[in-house]
Amino acid sequence: MNHFMKKSIEHFKIENENKARLLIKCPDQPGIVATVSDFLYRNGANIITSDQYTLNPDGGQFFMRIEFYCPQLGEKAEQIEQAFQPIGEQFAMNWQFVYVSQLKNIAIFVSNEPHCLMELLWEYQSGSLMANIALVISNHETARETVESVGIPFYYIPANKDIRKQVEERQLQLLKDYEVDVIVLARYMQILTSDFVKNYENRIINIHHSFLPAFVGAKPYERAYERGVKMIGATSHYVTNDLDEGPIIEQDIGRVDHRDDIAKMKKIGQAIERVVLSRAVKWHLEDRIIVHQNKTIVF
Amino acid sequence: MNHFMKKSIEHFKIENENKARLLIKCPDQPGIVATVSDFLYRNGANIITSDQYTLNPDGGQFFMRIEFYCPQLGEKAEQIEQAFQPIGEQFAMNWQFVYVSQLKNIAIFVSNEPHCLMELLWEYQSGSLMANIALVISNHETARETVESVGIPFYYIPANKDIRKQVEERQLQLLKDYEVDVIVLARYMQILTSDFVKNYENRIINIHHSFLPAFVGAKPYERAYERGVKMIGATSHYVTNDLDEGPIIEQDIGRVDHRDDIAKMKKIGQAIERVVLSRAVKWHLEDRIIVHQNKTIVF
Amino acid sequence: MNHFMKKSIEHFKIENENKARLLIKCPDQPGIVATVSDFLYRNGANIITSDQYTLNPDGGQFFMRIEFYCPQLGEKAEQIEQAFQPIGEQFAMNWQFVYVSQLKNIAIFVSNEPHCLMELLWEYQSGSLMANIALVISNHETARETVESVGIPFYYIPANKDIRKQVEERQLQLLKDYEVDVIVLARYMQILTSDFVKNYENRIINIHHSFLPAFVGAKPYERAYERGVKMIGATSHYVTNDLDEGPIIEQDIGRVDHRDDIAKMKKIGQAIERVVLSRAVKWHLEDRIIVHQNKTIVF
Amino acid sequence: MNHFMKKSIEHFKIENENKARLLIKCPDQPGIVATVSDFLYRNGANIITSDQYTLNPDGGQFFMRIEFYCPQLGEKAEQIEQAFQPIGEQFAMNWQFVYVSQLKNIAIFVSNEPHCLMELLWEYQSGSLMANIALVISNHETARETVESVGIPFYYIPANKDIRKQVEERQLQLLKDYEVDVIVLARYMQILTSDFVKNYENRIINIHHSFLPAFVGAKPYERAYERGVKMIGATSHYVTNDLDEGPIIEQDIGRVDHRDDIAKMKKIGQAIERVVLSRAVKWHLEDRIIVHQNKTIVF
Repeated sequence: MNHFMKKSIEHFKIENENKARLLIKCPDQPGIVATVSDFLYRNGANIITSDQYTLNPDGGQFFMRIEFYCPQLGEKAEQIEQAFQPIGEQFAMNWQFVYVSQLKNIAIFVSNEPHCLMELLWEYQSGSLMANIALVISNHETARETVESVGIPFYYIPANKDIRKQVEERQLQLLKDYEVDVIVLARYMQILTSDFVKNYENRIINIHHSFLPAFVGAKPYERAYERGVKMIGATSHYVTNDLDEGPIIEQDIGRVDHRDDIAKMKKIGQAIERVVLSRAVKWHLEDRIIVHQNKTIVF
Repeated sequence: MNHFMKKSIEHFKIENENKARLLIKCPDQPGIVATVSDFLYRNGANIITSDQYTLNPDGGQFFMRIEFYCPQLGEKAEQIEQAFQPIGEQFAMNWQFVYVSQLKNIAIFVSNEPHCLMELLWEYQSGSLMANIALVISNHETARETVESVGIPFYYIPANKDIRKQVEERQLQLLKDYEVDVIVLARYMQILTSDFVKNYENRIINIHHSFLPAFVGAKPYERAYERGVKMIGATSHYVTNDLDEGPIIEQDIGRVDHRDDIAKMKKIGQAIERVVLSRAVKWHLEDRIIVHQNKTIVF
Repeated sequence: MNHFMKKSIEHFKIENENKARLLIKCPDQPGIVATVSDFLYRNGANIITSDQYTLNPDGGQFFMRIEFYCPQLGEKAEQIEQAFQPIGEQFAMNWQFVYVSQLKNIAIFVSNEPHCLMELLWEYQSGSLMANIALVISNHETARETVESVGIPFYYIPANKDIRKQVEERQLQLLKDYEVDVIVLARYMQILTSDFVKNYENRIINIHHSFLPAFVGAKPYERAYERGVKMIGATSHYVTNDLDEGPIIEQDIGRVDHRDDIAKMKKIGQAIERVVLSRAVKWHLEDRIIVHQNKTIVF
Repeated sequence: MNHFMKKSIEHFKIENENKARLLIKCPDQPGIVATVSDFLYRNGANIITSDQYTLNPDGGQFFMRIEFYCPQLGEKAEQIEQAFQPIGEQFAMNWQFVYVSQLKNIAIFVSNEPHCLMELLWEYQSGSLMANIALVISNHETARETVESVGIPFYYIPANKDIRKQVEERQLQLLKDYEVDVIVLARYMQILTSDFVKNYENRIINIHHSFLPAFVGAKPYERAYERGVKMIGATSHYVTNDLDEGPIIEQDIGRVDHRDDIAKMKKIGQAIERVVLSRAVKWHLEDRIIVHQNKTIVF
């Protein structure tokens, strides 16, 4: 970690030591906002931003994300969480307090193409991606030099479908050792087993190199070229057991025309992949994403 | 007004008869959200959407827009507004309840180029622009046939800078007669006097055919061509006494290249103007815009 | 046809009476450009714009579109075409001269949703869509008033899959009577038989309300909502016998988020459909599109 | 330079050793295309792509860019250029042959913000920016480590307006020593003298952090925030003696809203700056840009 990053992170932690987020998901009913905002007010918290959404207003589902400031938050956090418990029960809430200065630990999985990894490292080094990139795992040695030059541990774990079980055991051990909160598949071209996935539900972020649900599966650029589309895209989503079917976080697209062959499409696509994955990871780190069934609410 | 529009409007009014919006602007301090949401809850209102923003969290300005549902709203509205008064005073609020089913009266001013007028009429006829287009005023006869075929009164008032005072007097009388809430300058190429403007502060929406603050004033496409820009834009803003300097509501752009001469730029630009003005008008009608100093908060 | 349109068209015809386009498709080999440009030069033509593209430079396919100006073109056209014949044979060309002032005859097919039709009529009336809209055919009466008010014949032909054969016979007769060059399916929700399609190969332009190949077939907005995509799109393509599989001409997209329900998605989508179809139709009218296998080259 | 880059460059040189580009600018007259394409054909060249543009068809200016393939180009280049001379004279052409495998030498000037430099280095390392980055010159030490780790010489030359003359002398000497073809100002915040600029006319590419001509000069993000714009942009242009007034090569924009303060705008803007500068530099390297008066034709 270079000097600039260290300073960025220290600065961020100090600036945000009294900031927290409250995430709520519950059946809709009158009085939720009044109760929650009154609770925060009585506990000395001042709301910075608040977003809410009700799916199907009649008998539907309520979602909320509040970011608040509270003096002496460190000392008061435990007591606040305890005091919130009855409210959570009253409204049958799925709720969580997250403390902004407690950076999340990220593991990045990468294969042979480094562009998405590079973008994340770049955002990390420039202080735009506020997290702790704890380690990088790859089934190729390609990225070792780059990763280690930033001071991040790099683990080379060769992988193929025949040794999937052993590979994942080793990966899971590393994730445990590094206390990883979120896994980013930055063009990691291996399929994960459902055993692996269930350990990190809604915490594995993938980038798929197509505008899903177009071109699910392998070789999307080749198939986009074949079909003669005029735009190509990329999709970032949480990984579930259904390949490329998990909740979509973000998508974006770029124009192509008849002059663009497959190689050119890949270049154009890589720029889109970088941006889309980077946005999705940042939104996750800022606790902006709530998953409901197979969709995301992004506040 | 055709049959489809009549049905749309009736349907909209019935669907929204118990919906209102509360708009707030006040100095920031703890407890605003708690107090307001508690108030709504105690008055039997259920929040549908809520947006808030604090400018300069320390000692800053607080803005809020709440859309809520309240059974028997028609009967209870007056009493709710009265009950809210002490809260408004307590927090030194600039506040307003708006009732969704009470459609706003629009006057459209247009000159010789009909594309922005056409877009608004089209949105109106298709039930996407929920308001009452009360009248169209123009200094040309060009649009009469189109406007009258939709069943909207059309007033031809020749205008030029020498007769500005008389022209505006007649316009103001019409605006009063039709109880107009908002004026849309859909490429009306005449300058309004400050006397006129002060009657409709933050209620006159203009479309300027450039990406402001580039090319303030006349002939923006000509000057964009001269400068060799690679993108042209349009800007919708509230009209103030400073030409093209009012609070910006929305902007958008389109690509041009060396092959595009001024005529082509105008065509490309018209498509952008249509979209930008239409968005701004709809946001105004939905009470999404709060003006603060010379800027807009668009919720 | 109103006065403005009549003047626009007359003006266009006079301005372009000496302009033509030469479209070429042939196996690539050295000397094509030299031979063709020398031919035009010797025949007194001056090239205005020229575009070319070679697919697979080694042993591949060559495509070219030249727009040129030639004094007294009306008198010389036949002689030029005859003189070009040996060149066409020498290079095994698929070639065609198109005369800019000879406007194409369009038939628009529409069903119950008028937004794409409206956009085309609007572009037509404003002089941006240079063609002769010869007739509109619909399986609903909805659009009659609008269409007839522009002075375009409107034919109501009820349609469903049980009477497809009779319906198409009547449609084909009308297309013949009006000497139609190109058919635009402006949200015409009926499937055409292969017998119908083969009469107008690469001359039937459809708008599909999704970002193909995502959501082929019915109810794309419903399925987009179900999948939780963050962008929706529209695709204009030539109709072939495979549903939604024809050569893509143009695509575009718009952003949606969790707040957008199906009705809102449709509104957002309609704006995209309008633009995409309108662009595709204009490119076709300007002879910018060359179909090769199942793809388009758009110059 | 890493192994991957070395291989990319070698591969590129071999693949393109028989490719060249012919750039032409001359008064328009009949026969240019015929003469030039006939010339290339007779000299055994096969056209890969060809673009042309005529400004003001009557008595106007003609521009052309042809990319061609010619076996044994290395041996034949000199003779081809000589043979072309009479044609150039006949049509009063400004013409130039450029050989694709002869990579251009780039000097990057950078100040304290590294994001644009980083993007160029990243494109360079991934084989997308085909040139020889000969050296980086900076008035800060910030970027040294990054630059040297890629194997590129880094020169720290402190600069301020009082020592401008000496600084530029040293810079010019370095540019001469490294035989630099093109200078990229990747957020180099110093003004260059007209003496400096005239040495590299149309060969100094700058990135300005606004959507020119909006916010010419210093602190554009601050002023964009002040004005309350809804979009910010970046502009890449050739440097002339008039600050921010040179021929525009490329522009792009991004959305902002009321929640974005100046710091956030800068982050959003940096992403745009990176992309816009990178596109402009690549187009320059591919000889796609022809400057005419104060505008660019970008083929």
